[in-house]
Amino acid sequence: MEGKLYAVGVGPGEPSLLTIKALKALEEARVVAVPKGKAEKKSLALSIIKDYIKDKEVLELVFPMTDNKEVLEEFWEKAAKKVAALLEKGERVVFATLGDPSLYSTFTYLRSYLEKRGNSFPVEVIPGINSFSAAASLLQISLVEGDQNLAVVSAPQNTSRLKNILKIFDTVVILKVHRYLEEIMEVLEELDLEDKGYFVSSCGREDEYFSRDLKALLKKDLDYLSMIIVRK
Amino acid sequence: MEGKLYAVGVGPGEPSLLTIKALKALEEARVVAVPKGKAEKKSLALSIIKDYIKDKEVLELVFPMTDNKEVLEEFWEKAAKKVAALLEKGERVVFATLGDPSLYSTFTYLRSYLEKRGNSFPVEVIPGINSFSAAASLLQISLVEGDQNLAVVSAPQNTSRLKNILKIFDTVVILKVHRYLEEIMEVLEELDLEDKGYFVSSCGREDEYFSRDLKALLKKDLDYLSMIIVRK
Repeated sequence: MEGKLYAVGVGPGEPSLLTIKALKALEEARVVAVPKGKAEKKSLALSIIKDYIKDKEVLELVFPMTDNKEVLEEFWEKAAKKVAALLEKGERVVFATLGDPSLYSTFTYLRSYLEKRGNSFPVEVIPGINSFSAAASLLQISLVEGDQNLAVVSAPQNTSRLKNILKIFDTVVILKVHRYLEEIMEVLEELDLEDKGYFVSSCGREDEYFSRDLKALLKKDLDYLSMIIVRK
Repeated sequence: MEGKLYAVGVGPGEPSLLTIKALKALEEARVVAVPKGKAEKKSLALSIIKDYIKDKEVLELVFPMTDNKEVLEEFWEKAAKKVAALLEKGERVVFATLGDPSLYSTFTYLRSYLEKRGNSFPVEVIPGINSFSAAASLLQISLVEGDQNLAVVSAPQNTSRLKNILKIFDTVVILKVHRYLEEIMEVLEELDLEDKGYFVSSCGREDEYFSRDLKALLKKDLDYLSMIIVRK
């Protein structure tokens, strides 16, 4: 049997937001690989799927949250090696990734490292619910309708570019806002948009939280997986 | 029992891309409402879920594809009235919508018409896989990674605005391109991006199609549900 790699989006947090297709891929795999930020921490992706995979072999892959490229490359190389070893044995390996595999997913790096190593196995990508769709469902707002347009950016942004984007777009999703709330608030105030923002964190998880009072959040310790949706 | 309305995203076409949560909502409803463009046509949403709902009562709601606001309002009013009548009887009504309920979904209009009529029932929104995530999975590309940014627009665009968006963003998803391919090609050529586009139509359905040769498509009759993803 030839090995095959599945990239499976498991959604932002609520286990029932897995698709039927994702569930089937998990059930058919013997080994499920999950990313995590620190060796001593739990994998968020694993916590979402744990009730579905029961006695499967779980391969935890550490991808440290650092900007140090050398450290990152070392860990990616290590992870790709482990996955490649299983694929070479003819295994079906499912890599479970938070949200959707095509939107800011660690899968991109795993794949490029496998290619760098010269590994070429069949890959199937199964889309997942992304965090901003889940957040919009929770808030019961529509993100875009008719001929409106949507921008999705991450918070570490050039301020003048963010301002420009907020001017052009009907709706702007700003991801990973936890350390940038102050800068974002300044831009929103300048554009008279401070009342148009929704803050959402940990969507679909136990500590799910949302608020329209962005100012009150300025002094709080925010979750890494938090976003602001600006809807004009 | 109090009536409750569920807006359920059924994804872009492949039935197995429904979430477990969406499936549960369908199973628990007695009546499933689906939108369609013409009275004599079949509902695309219904074709996706038909194997899951078997003997349920199906309420087909016609929302004609027209820009005539008066005609549209008449049909929306009629649809809202039918749904309200069921909710008033204490029914759970699932409105099945293509893709995700927060992204260009007809659900927005149904909801606002119910509110206009003075109906206020509990609503639950269940997110769905959106068409561009499914397209990216099919193409096996990542849309955004790291600190990149993504724009989602619909094709009937002011050309200079589209040009500006293509300059600022790493990835631009242009939806509903079927009648605007020529204009879009011109903009892409001007920006030297003509080799960076992917065309995808009917993702996950029997007539699913994708191509990187946009020029060859200029003379073809394109599906209404087609998009171009420009990935720099």
